Amino acid sequence: MQITVLGSGSWGSVLADVLARNGHAVTIYGRNAQEINEINTDHTNKHYLADLHMDESIVGTTDLHQAVASAAAIFFVIPTQAIRGVAEKVGAILSEEGHRPFLISAAKGLEEGTLYRISQILTQSIPAPVRGDIIVLSGPSHAEDVARHDITTLTAASTNEDAMAWVQWVVMNDFMRIYTSPDVVGVELGGAIKNVIAIGAGAIHGLGYGDNTKAALMTRGLAEMARLGAAFGADPLTFSGLSGLGDLIVTCTSTNSRNWRCGNRLGQGESLQHILNTMGMVVEGVPTAQAVHDLSSQAQVDMPICEAIYEVLYRHRPLQDSIDALMGRIAKPEIDF
Amino acid sequence: MQITVLGSGSWGSVLADVLARNGHAVTIYGRNAQEINEINTDHTNKHYLADLHMDESIVGTTDLHQAVASAAAIFFVIPTQAIRGVAEKVGAILSEEGHRPFLISAAKGLEEGTLYRISQILTQSIPAPVRGDIIVLSGPSHAEDVARHDITTLTAASTNEDAMAWVQWVVMNDFMRIYTSPDVVGVELGGAIKNVIAIGAGAIHGLGYGDNTKAALMTRGLAEMARLGAAFGADPLTFSGLSGLGDLIVTCTSTNSRNWRCGNRLGQGESLQHILNTMGMVVEGVPTAQAVHDLSSQAQVDMPICEAIYEVLYRHRPLQDSIDALMGRIAKPEIDF
Repeated sequence: MQITVLGSGSWGSVLADVLARNGHAVTIYGRNAQEINEINTDHTNKHYLADLHMDESIVGTTDLHQAVASAAAIFFVIPTQAIRGVAEKVGAILSEEGHRPFLISAAKGLEEGTLYRISQILTQSIPAPVRGDIIVLSGPSHAEDVARHDITTLTAASTNEDAMAWVQWVVMNDFMRIYTSPDVVGVELGGAIKNVIAIGAGAIHGLGYGDNTKAALMTRGLAEMARLGAAFGADPLTFSGLSGLGDLIVTCTSTNSRNWRCGNRLGQGESLQHILNTMGMVVEGVPTAQAVHDLSSQAQVDMPICEAIYEVLYRHRPLQDSIDALMGRIAKPEIDF
Repeated sequence: MQITVLGSGSWGSVLADVLARNGHAVTIYGRNAQEINEINTDHTNKHYLADLHMDESIVGTTDLHQAVASAAAIFFVIPTQAIRGVAEKVGAILSEEGHRPFLISAAKGLEEGTLYRISQILTQSIPAPVRGDIIVLSGPSHAEDVARHDITTLTAASTNEDAMAWVQWVVMNDFMRIYTSPDVVGVELGGAIKNVIAIGAGAIHGLGYGDNTKAALMTRGLAEMARLGAAFGADPLTFSGLSGLGDLIVTCTSTNSRNWRCGNRLGQGESLQHILNTMGMVVEGVPTAQAVHDLSSQAQVDMPICEAIYEVLYRHRPLQDSIDALMGRIAKPEIDF
């Protein structure tokens, strides 16, 4: 059985490595020929993961047709804003070939403009006859830590139990554990919105605040994630699980997180444009902040932390001013959703 | 109006300072004459907080009668296992004097043997006619960070709304924010049990695990805190608030936490006895681990993380063996309470 990973960034590379080490035939697709060549010849992807020696059975390709034509499962591990374009091409190829692979979303974000979750984009872009079950894979999983076989837990969410069991079977080993959840909406929103909160956590660190403030921001941030989720039919308790709280913790407290690093540099006074120009990787929380702003306005859900970050990123509001306003809100009973 | 703080450790000292800076007349009581003398003459308590210059209006005393005889409110900020003894003396003094101050618990733990929460100990030890409303004050509040006026959020929990509003009034200022909650049981259990989880978080760090593993431990740890709370009538959502999640975050991710430090040293191979002998401060999570073991057995609630830590602390189980067993548990649906 061939498994394909679309996306040769840090998470795609390490997921491909995990799957190959688990004994599966893995193809990894990327647009950057030099990167794919490095994977095929040196079995490394040093721009993203300096220390990872990838399983030598992994086949890299820049040819999307070759990548998905005979795949039994396709992992989407590409930036959210690029998923629709790739998924439409995948849909066309699958329609030609007439087979129906599992579709796993391992990216985290919301599409700008449409405000769609990734599973919604996949549903729209890939025709039903060739669209296998969609599974969302999310949780606290810095690629750098998985690469060194740190014990890592993920949530697989799907409406189909067999599909979740399949993901458990291909991914689990002695350092990867997969829990399951039927709450696709909650798992996707948690993974997306935590990137916005992480920019805030980085920003308060960059401004010089300490651990108490960070813990307050994360706690209240989780509450507003759960509020928005509830408005869209998610179970609020999902946000207290690995894909919500767990991922929030790892993204807000690890200096490996690019969203946290982006916020930290904002806090130290750098401009957003300069940060994005020099980061060398996509910062998912930035477009997601816009989408969360639109989504919360639409659902009339109060999200003061995400809104404060949105105003800094998109409305040129000074960061310290935004943080002061946030922290100055009147004290009130704690549970308000 | 005179406010008394019982306990001149780090949290007692900084709380006294906050209250005095807010314009209240504050007395701080401690057993250590040298420490109290230092507070009165140098306005410092360097053993606990090297950089804090305490408000000079604070009166230190080693005389419990002087401390509480005319207090309008008494903050208990002493180690959990010492609270009953002090509270019984306070009850006797108040009975002589015939007045009825607010009683604020700002300690975090469970009494060994009885398994009582601190508000229960206060209720039992202080006679009803002189026992004012009990308020529990808890949340992510490392003393070191409060001392440098980091923005800090706390939850005040009580069955009496006026009493909570009073605590908001005396403690709040431009860096201290107080939320309120009616869930006394949930707030107390969260504050107590997070110290046990923090020992675990320190231990996995000491063993060399990274951010993904820490996030998994904290997330699953929070779930078991909420499960135990629900069995004793707490609202599970309380554990997602400042006094649960917020405090868990600050205790598990800050090297200021003595519980985390204790765990980290266990992970590096030091013996518990040696750690406790050289720490110079009470590590609340150690006796609380015993109490949580007893409480979860009594309520028949599954708490694998707390149990793993209990076995390391009290049953001489090797740490790595305990962590392996914990992480090797069969994957299952994530929300199971």
